[in-house]
Amino acid sequence: MAEKNTLHDAFLDELRDMYHAEKQLTSALPKLAKKAKSPDLSEAFRSHLAETENHVTRLEQVFAELGETAKAKTCDGMKGIIAEANEMIGESYDDQTMDAVLIASAQRAEHYEIAAYGTLVTWARTMEHDSAADLLQQNLDEEKAADEKLTDIAESGINEQAAQSTH
Amino acid sequence: MAEKNTLHDAFLDELRDMYHAEKQLTSALPKLAKKAKSPDLSEAFRSHLAETENHVTRLEQVFAELGETAKAKTCDGMKGIIAEANEMIGESYDDQTMDAVLIASAQRAEHYEIAAYGTLVTWARTMEHDSAADLLQQNLDEEKAADEKLTDIAESGINEQAAQSTH
Repeated sequence: MAEKNTLHDAFLDELRDMYHAEKQLTSALPKLAKKAKSPDLSEAFRSHLAETENHVTRLEQVFAELGETAKAKTCDGMKGIIAEANEMIGESYDDQTMDAVLIASAQRAEHYEIAAYGTLVTWARTMEHDSAADLLQQNLDEEKAADEKLTDIAESGINEQAAQSTH
Repeated sequence: MAEKNTLHDAFLDELRDMYHAEKQLTSALPKLAKKAKSPDLSEAFRSHLAETENHVTRLEQVFAELGETAKAKTCDGMKGIIAEANEMIGESYDDQTMDAVLIASAQRAEHYEIAAYGTLVTWARTMEHDSAADLLQQNLDEEKAADEKLTDIAESGINEQAAQSTH
């Protein structure tokens, strides 16, 4: 009987999944930045793009720490989230609503990553891959901060102004 | 020129997306419950299935509050997350690792829903759909509690035991 895969194998598999997820995001974020009408929102997407490029680099460092080559594996979760975002962007919304919709789409992507990095950090610590865990924790912290920033921007007036359009 | 869609239209669109997401989950959760080796984990999936069926009912109440017929729209995000979960479940992992993987997959689904309900609650409150907001808040609270319960189960020994398999 073939030997069964271990937590280490699952960890590598999830790393490859996230490597693909982050790479997909580096292509998607410029589109969101371009579509956003609020300068604050556009700037938030651009600054998260720079962070996302760093996340890709940190994941490459994690692979190197483990003596593995960085390899991507199709991340169907992020693929679906981005397909949805592209569909919403293609709709004809008034400007304020479009910004609210862009935030909603981006927060789904952030939460997907928060869940995934949460798992990766915990598994890395459990297997005593401490340097890898520290790198993954930095990505996790930045995803959480990006999500909170989007909530702040939504609450700073975009939602209120979008709601006016319904009256 | 055609009139542009408003926040109310975006809200209905997101409700239809979640209605489909929750329905997909009612089909997926029994598979996770069956695959789980830990009785606590299996029970957590079964009890979240009962909650998920309630979420579907609450979404139908929200549609009714708005004078709309409950209608589902393909939710590509959840579809991708479930496709990934099915792929992971099909792999040959040792028992403890499989439980850790099931938790990881379910937490991606929970976080997707946390992001989506977070948006829906905020939009509903902004548009003064207070009864709808209360119903959506109940779903959001239960998704957050389900996510925390999965973290507790993972930390109660499953991860530690799975890590043993790598030594």
